[in-house]
Amino acid sequence: MAQNIYDNPDFFTGYSRLPRQVHGLRGAPEWPAIRSMLPPLAGKRVVDLGCGFGWASRWMREQGAASVLGIDLSRNMIARARADTADPAIDYRIADLETLELPEGAFDLAYSALTFHYVKDFRRLIGMIHKALAADGDLVFTIEHPVFMAASHPHWIADDEGRKSWPVNGYSIEGERRTDWFAKGVLKYHRTLGTTLNAMIDEGFEIRRVEEFAPTREQVAEMPELAEELERPMLLLVSASKPAP
Amino acid sequence: MAQNIYDNPDFFTGYSRLPRQVHGLRGAPEWPAIRSMLPPLAGKRVVDLGCGFGWASRWMREQGAASVLGIDLSRNMIARARADTADPAIDYRIADLETLELPEGAFDLAYSALTFHYVKDFRRLIGMIHKALAADGDLVFTIEHPVFMAASHPHWIADDEGRKSWPVNGYSIEGERRTDWFAKGVLKYHRTLGTTLNAMIDEGFEIRRVEEFAPTREQVAEMPELAEELERPMLLLVSASKPAP
Repeated sequence: MAQNIYDNPDFFTGYSRLPRQVHGLRGAPEWPAIRSMLPPLAGKRVVDLGCGFGWASRWMREQGAASVLGIDLSRNMIARARADTADPAIDYRIADLETLELPEGAFDLAYSALTFHYVKDFRRLIGMIHKALAADGDLVFTIEHPVFMAASHPHWIADDEGRKSWPVNGYSIEGERRTDWFAKGVLKYHRTLGTTLNAMIDEGFEIRRVEEFAPTREQVAEMPELAEELERPMLLLVSASKPAP
Repeated sequence: MAQNIYDNPDFFTGYSRLPRQVHGLRGAPEWPAIRSMLPPLAGKRVVDLGCGFGWASRWMREQGAASVLGIDLSRNMIARARADTADPAIDYRIADLETLELPEGAFDLAYSALTFHYVKDFRRLIGMIHKALAADGDLVFTIEHPVFMAASHPHWIADDEGRKSWPVNGYSIEGERRTDWFAKGVLKYHRTLGTTLNAMIDEGFEIRRVEEFAPTREQVAEMPELAEELERPMLLLVSASKPAP
């Protein structure tokens, strides 16, 4: 079973105060980039993997999605997601993406934000999602970028000329990474970008777009602290489709 | 016109002594990975973009390619490539990839090793290659990895815990990078991995494989200095195909 850090009370308290949890999608600077990668939502059956508080699930219904199934491992998150909607076309379920099975061909869009890097068996998950999508269905997801995750101690440093830099080491050594983020020893799984994309291709997806989030000039003007995201890629955004047979 | 550093005498002298120039393909540790990405070569019409001394061009003919057109900007390289073969099915030509035009549908495989990062207008080049390929044709190329190229001064450093690391900065700032490598101010063009893949997708290619070269255990045992290539990706290897219409 995946580590369920989100039900750790200290973690949950800190996490819940993040701008993206307080303000929802508009608190996530990568949201405009994700939005531009999403297919039209009208009439779509959507599964939201790692739905958290359900911000995206609710937004997709507002955009006309026929139904949204939100999945999360965290009882805390699902409890609040359920409390925040009375929409009968949104269903929330507690489940572990390591073992989740979905019905075949039941969805038109699988969406996931910042969740898959907690999953150890990415290949299994991607194969399961591929089966769960109808022909011409789409998969759009974001993860922490492997350049952000790779190092044994990821943090800003100055290089020997004083240039603010992000150190990369152990990039090709895939597997567990533990970081302290609201709690000690949060467990993530590092995979190279090649491994991530090749798993998708091997499971039958066609890659449509690969974005390494960088803030726009306007975003940096509004939130100067975002400028450092120009230095190293923190987030990887991928869209892919399941071709009709 | 692209910078033609290869005809700088100092550069050429140093470059010609690299193991991969002295020993050819077996001097390039990424060669087994490239080879596994290549389609069967029998009967194929191949264009080798940035062919250098022609090591790969000759190898492809040995594997049964019907013809190979080798292209390089460097007179020095092409002169030696021509001197090293009497095969009438290998043709070498001096040309600049910034402006090269190839006949439409004339090739089954476009191959390029460590050349495209010298090209400013990657999108134009990829569109031209797409047109030059027959339906079901393949494109296989390697470039310096954007993580390797991004920093203003790319070099090994120790992080503040003494861990050997590769600093990344300016990753999202695309464009010129100048490094000193056998000569001062060698000019390369940094593009994010997303930009590279999206240009290919936008020009009509399907991405088949994305590899970030890492040495195998056997390679590290044989050449211990390769171990550092596990720390950060130095080379990006991509294969793609032009789908039949």
